[in-house]
Amino acid sequence: MQKHFSLNDILNFEPRYRATFINSLGGFKSLALIGTANQIGQTNLAVFNSLFHLGANPPLFGFIVRPDSAERHTLHNIISTQEFSVNHVSESFYKKAHQTSARYENQISEFDATALTEEYKKGFKAPFVKESNLQIAAQFLRKVEVVENGTLLIIAKIKFVSVAENCIATDGYVDIEKAGSITCVGLDSYHRTEKIARLAYAKPNVPLTEIT
Amino acid sequence: MQKHFSLNDILNFEPRYRATFINSLGGFKSLALIGTANQIGQTNLAVFNSLFHLGANPPLFGFIVRPDSAERHTLHNIISTQEFSVNHVSESFYKKAHQTSARYENQISEFDATALTEEYKKGFKAPFVKESNLQIAAQFLRKVEVVENGTLLIIAKIKFVSVAENCIATDGYVDIEKAGSITCVGLDSYHRTEKIARLAYAKPNVPLTEIT
Repeated sequence: MQKHFSLNDILNFEPRYRATFINSLGGFKSLALIGTANQIGQTNLAVFNSLFHLGANPPLFGFIVRPDSAERHTLHNIISTQEFSVNHVSESFYKKAHQTSARYENQISEFDATALTEEYKKGFKAPFVKESNLQIAAQFLRKVEVVENGTLLIIAKIKFVSVAENCIATDGYVDIEKAGSITCVGLDSYHRTEKIARLAYAKPNVPLTEIT
Repeated sequence: MQKHFSLNDILNFEPRYRATFINSLGGFKSLALIGTANQIGQTNLAVFNSLFHLGANPPLFGFIVRPDSAERHTLHNIISTQEFSVNHVSESFYKKAHQTSARYENQISEFDATALTEEYKKGFKAPFVKESNLQIAAQFLRKVEVVENGTLLIIAKIKFVSVAENCIATDGYVDIEKAGSITCVGLDSYHRTEKIARLAYAKPNVPLTEIT
């Protein structure tokens, strides 16, 4: 039985109920840990689920930061050092990833608090998550204020990528399911995936085929 | 064996290989059909996978449009009518959803071309997808140009939501897996999901618990 919720219904929800409800509606989301360091090398790690593709040439992506949340240390470090790492999350450490969303004091590194392992790569100061199977080094380009609610869109460029060679198909597709990446819904629901199919480029009036 | 790709490696990829590679890196994504109509009621339907949550109060979300792609008709209709529908995609019609990405002429409705069913709701002119288990009516608020590559961020407000009552948990969580929503990777890979767990709000130095 379908239930209809008007904007008024939604605005009258209890705030926590509303946040949980609305956060679920956007569908399945990317799940990644963003690693940063401040100017003196103090590290920070935070879970994000709003990463989205912006373009392939140059390779760009974006994500949303809430300056009034536990994400504020990540924002501060990104703006002051201009770089950060993006690390896909696997089932083997998703609870640690979730735990990074707790409001730790600034002098506490979530790497230490969750026992995730810092990894460093040549020419890049932000820490990666060693446990992650897909790591991306990113350069901050610009922030855009979403005036409607004070959140910020961060626009970034990919500097390099580290991924298992056997997860890359001959056409460039990266099989992140095979790499172990998982997905999430809303604020707290974690899901593994099972591939249905890849579908070839669609053309008008031409039957769709699967990519095998 | 991890493989390292520098920005130079990525920029030297063959363009289609690069698009497929970079599109995969953002992780699992939302999958939704956006329904619109123009001023004279001609309908359009297009698949999008960049929806992201912006805020719960007011209920806001965003997504990215490429003005030079098959998405241009959607963009035109949203700006001229200020409204559109967002419809989650289920496994039963994911091939039809993919087919909407073909470059149909403006006078062809993707509803007709794919045999998906238009559904109308009171006080709202944009068509919904009848086959969809989770439908959202949205009001256009603003577009933001991403100057780095000419894409546009669309910011929108939720006007009403239709979802099966038995998919809503007591705390407001909408179980979109139970509702049948699926996820995608990159340009063409479709995946069903299997819930691992929901985790309670994380606090420093407090063991995590599951929400059951």
